[in-house]
Amino acid sequence: MTAAGRDPLERLARLLARLPGIGEKSSLRLALAIARDDDDYAVALAEALTDVHANLRTCVSCGDWSVSERCAICSDPRRDAALICVVAHPQDRIAIERSGTFRGRYHILHGVLDPLAGVGPAQLGIDGLLSRLRDDSVKEVIVATSPNVEGDATALYLAKLMTPLGVRVTRIASGIAVGGELEYADLTTLSRAFEDRRALV
Amino acid sequence: MTAAGRDPLERLARLLARLPGIGEKSSLRLALAIARDDDDYAVALAEALTDVHANLRTCVSCGDWSVSERCAICSDPRRDAALICVVAHPQDRIAIERSGTFRGRYHILHGVLDPLAGVGPAQLGIDGLLSRLRDDSVKEVIVATSPNVEGDATALYLAKLMTPLGVRVTRIASGIAVGGELEYADLTTLSRAFEDRRALV
Repeated sequence: MTAAGRDPLERLARLLARLPGIGEKSSLRLALAIARDDDDYAVALAEALTDVHANLRTCVSCGDWSVSERCAICSDPRRDAALICVVAHPQDRIAIERSGTFRGRYHILHGVLDPLAGVGPAQLGIDGLLSRLRDDSVKEVIVATSPNVEGDATALYLAKLMTPLGVRVTRIASGIAVGGELEYADLTTLSRAFEDRRALV
Repeated sequence: MTAAGRDPLERLARLLARLPGIGEKSSLRLALAIARDDDDYAVALAEALTDVHANLRTCVSCGDWSVSERCAICSDPRRDAALICVVAHPQDRIAIERSGTFRGRYHILHGVLDPLAGVGPAQLGIDGLLSRLRDDSVKEVIVATSPNVEGDATALYLAKLMTPLGVRVTRIASGIAVGGELEYADLTTLSRAFEDRRALV
């Protein structure tokens, strides 16, 4: 395997190494596992990739990945259109859906405000979110970005922008994880848990 | 994305989850990263997979992955044909090649003897290795399987099989890793380092 450029395994490994969390060694291990698997697996994976490339687009309403113009959640009349949950990434939407805790609709920013990385309101398609507020009968926007510097800044920015439009903007609570030990919580989380305390009955 | 069966992202994630070390969450993260990457990436990866499927086969001589009937190393006249290094997996061959320490040829078993898992001499293609000893002018076979129970058993089995054929069978040394701390070596490694001690000058 000296002709590195024409070696199918090395080519596959190099491509796999571009994926997040896959280093040089893992990429080679994965390529070898694919080579070793029965042939149908490589073909099925290639087809799945082609399918993603050909058929996946973003929902015109919420920005989530979708096979149709409007995603399944945005076209579902049983989902509460008065409630929009704003998340940074599609995987956040998937995590919330799995918890089964939210019956409204979503808006996916595909990122958070990060001026140093050149991500401003235009890159996040915040105009699309604002136009949903004008058209629909949205009552509340729950900002469910992660509770870190960028996520909090994005939430604050959205609140300042949307509150004047007469919509209630809320933020998911931060605090000690359920089942977590108070003793091991970091100081910021602990103080946020006190700030976000709520009345018991 | 309620129609899970027809969702390209979930289909891709499910396939990726079959790879070693990729769990359910990572597979979704990878699928989303692929969706997010520019479209050419998914296409390039699909092509690389198809290429592996269509063009990769095992070398008739050493059993390593190859694009031709005989791999680059087996067809390289500069590699010493009198010396064969037996390894369990193609990645072991790659690791040894990277070290630049070995100028002979290889034999890849694609596994080690593991009777409990139903892996016997037939599954490892040991016949192919023996026929190489008969045909070629092989002087020495270095067994470079990993120094664990299965790797050691495989080495011993090969030694018993090949020594009567008039070939010298050796085993790579075990001991403290170069740069490692003797203090932190496990007991088995430490005792093996003493057994395998060699004369200084």
